[in-house]
Amino acid sequence: MSGASPANLGRPGGPAQRPRDEVRLARAALSRLVEPGDHTAAVLVGAVGPCRALAVMTGQDCLTGDEHQRAAAEAGSDETWTRRFAAGRRRWQTRAAQLDPAADLIAMHRMGGGLLIPEDDAWPRQLDDLGIERPFGLWYRGEVPPPEVGDTLAAVGSREATSYGRLVTERLIGQAAQAGLSIVSGGAYGIDGIAHRTALERGVGRPTTLAVLAGGLDRFYPSGHRQMLGQIAATGLLLSEMPPGASPTRHRFLHRNRLIAALAGAVVVLEARWRSGAQNTAHHALRIGREVGVVPGPITSPSSAGCHRLLLETPARLVMDTESVLDLVPGGRPVQGEPGLALMVPDGRRARDRAAVDVLDELDELESRVYEALAPRTHRCVDELSTAAGLPVPQLLTGLQRLARRGLAEQSDQRWRAVRPS
Amino acid sequence: MSGASPANLGRPGGPAQRPRDEVRLARAALSRLVEPGDHTAAVLVGAVGPCRALAVMTGQDCLTGDEHQRAAAEAGSDETWTRRFAAGRRRWQTRAAQLDPAADLIAMHRMGGGLLIPEDDAWPRQLDDLGIERPFGLWYRGEVPPPEVGDTLAAVGSREATSYGRLVTERLIGQAAQAGLSIVSGGAYGIDGIAHRTALERGVGRPTTLAVLAGGLDRFYPSGHRQMLGQIAATGLLLSEMPPGASPTRHRFLHRNRLIAALAGAVVVLEARWRSGAQNTAHHALRIGREVGVVPGPITSPSSAGCHRLLLETPARLVMDTESVLDLVPGGRPVQGEPGLALMVPDGRRARDRAAVDVLDELDELESRVYEALAPRTHRCVDELSTAAGLPVPQLLTGLQRLARRGLAEQSDQRWRAVRPS
Repeated sequence: MSGASPANLGRPGGPAQRPRDEVRLARAALSRLVEPGDHTAAVLVGAVGPCRALAVMTGQDCLTGDEHQRAAAEAGSDETWTRRFAAGRRRWQTRAAQLDPAADLIAMHRMGGGLLIPEDDAWPRQLDDLGIERPFGLWYRGEVPPPEVGDTLAAVGSREATSYGRLVTERLIGQAAQAGLSIVSGGAYGIDGIAHRTALERGVGRPTTLAVLAGGLDRFYPSGHRQMLGQIAATGLLLSEMPPGASPTRHRFLHRNRLIAALAGAVVVLEARWRSGAQNTAHHALRIGREVGVVPGPITSPSSAGCHRLLLETPARLVMDTESVLDLVPGGRPVQGEPGLALMVPDGRRARDRAAVDVLDELDELESRVYEALAPRTHRCVDELSTAAGLPVPQLLTGLQRLARRGLAEQSDQRWRAVRPS
Repeated sequence: MSGASPANLGRPGGPAQRPRDEVRLARAALSRLVEPGDHTAAVLVGAVGPCRALAVMTGQDCLTGDEHQRAAAEAGSDETWTRRFAAGRRRWQTRAAQLDPAADLIAMHRMGGGLLIPEDDAWPRQLDDLGIERPFGLWYRGEVPPPEVGDTLAAVGSREATSYGRLVTERLIGQAAQAGLSIVSGGAYGIDGIAHRTALERGVGRPTTLAVLAGGLDRFYPSGHRQMLGQIAATGLLLSEMPPGASPTRHRFLHRNRLIAALAGAVVVLEARWRSGAQNTAHHALRIGREVGVVPGPITSPSSAGCHRLLLETPARLVMDTESVLDLVPGGRPVQGEPGLALMVPDGRRARDRAAVDVLDELDELESRVYEALAPRTHRCVDELSTAAGLPVPQLLTGLQRLARRGLAEQSDQRWRAVRPS
């Protein structure tokens, strides 16, 4: 890791490190004290900074009048703030006794990780797009700094992937990973897991893949993905706003989705049911101005119903091949590897190329009318053809000669027949 | 048929019929003389009417100075018109000797049909939306007048229908036909044929289905659809702007598509390749302000690539169930038949209903956080739960009681556990 190293935590640091270490300890404590989505806590940290906020939230200290004013201005009114702050204090006190941020930092350090904070050079600046919803810090295991926003693509979808979902994820995400994009996902069963594994196998980005989990990084959830998540911790990057030991609740999953949306340059939804977490991620992304691409599927598949819903109800863009996926990422890089790689997706793009060489589609109106008047097996005379095509003889002859040059008409003894394109 | 009856043709008509019969004869002749898409001919008919236009185009008469002026005003300039008219004369003369409109009208009458013209009360007024591209007349076999625009839906798609294309066509078009809409299509193999047959079997509209052909109605093309087209002639409606004997050329297919688009209140594209006639029909429809619905499909299927292209490049709307199809037609009628019929499409709509009863999705933030803190098998005390949920005890108890009322939490000896929703 470049810049301030959380690996220093637990070792004697020079005086220069001291203030930053205090901030890191405070943010580590906040990550355990505060449940994601706690707007009051976020206002307080924004108004007075993490160290003062922690002292006030745990009851070690009180807000000064000036601090109270700043928070109240952010919250809208003095009365609103006073009421919210009192309610917050009651929430935060339930966990205040449990805090041991130094132990958490040491535990993560031993697992090859630490806590990234906004004060670090290595902090992924794209998370600032979340505004007040920016996490207090980002626990990690693996290789930091995280990739830049223009080098990342989030791939999300249903836990129950169909064979179609598997196929399109392996193809589209495989090629995006081969093109150098780091693939961000949520580590879940189904589409998430397929996306991570495809990136691990075929990716060339640094890292190939990032998994953003809803619980602490000391436990690999879901358990069936223990091996895969271990591999991501070793060669990729695991991230969470929750401290070690935190369990992955439904509530935390929904808030976790905003981190997937904000970390990546764009989000692709590969399969999603009518109500699904993948749609939640897509909405987070659209809210902060990220492009969202959606893969359509059969309308008979409930696993594509959420994709179609996004296409109907939001400005998400339909994607049908690797090129349209890469186009989503701002400053997206060109496809690396052998030329024609993008053509490996056997749908739109290839169909376009096939159609482009259909010589009959390239005929102009005159040529087309003359060609249609010709028969493939019978030679017909010019007068007959003139009537059939509804064209005077000079125009007809022009058309016949152009068709002959294209190899589509053949003359014999002043009579003409059509030649089928090869 | 109500209003002026083309059946009168070939019989002595009273003086009142005479002028209209002359117009009908002239329009019948024009339909053979002029190739669809001939802008110069359309300008001339618009400027001087069908009878004078025919006389001038066949060289029986010349344009008066006043007529020339009117046509030139329409064409843009005197010079442009003079040049175009001279070129047109050379085209029209190639077919002038072949005209026998009375014979054409009698032939169609014997086949149980005739020629509808804009001067008829039975003329489908929605064709006027085509402006200068309105056909000179509409040859028909079957039941006239054609249905109103609000009672019709066009169903178009690839000749090579996949099993998915067959399934969605049978479901969506079957239910639209059961809802009373007349189904318009092109009589071709693939989606067209499936749509027609589904409407013939299950439709309740008058007629159940209309086939708009690219060639004359004396020949059933393609030959494999002879029986089906015969059934449509007998119980539905066959239409074409081309006179009997005209062959269905590629050129005529493309112009035919504008008639499908204009006759119907909306167009649904069920499957389409990257380049396809169905897309051509969709573009015609969008150009004259008709709604276009598009069924998405797997991106791995070349038969859906054109559908996705329409969704990407045009204002066409994604449709995923019968309701969204019926919504396309202006003044579209409600679904008839037993309630819940619309739910027979096993995708979006049903998935929505299933999801709506997911009781966990209905929990508010407080209830959700408390529920997540509970374990399903272990009873936990209030202090433990307060810490796990990050909520003070009074709030926690409120949440627990609300969950208990919903049947999602169970108390035993001051300790609580979660109950899974049934």
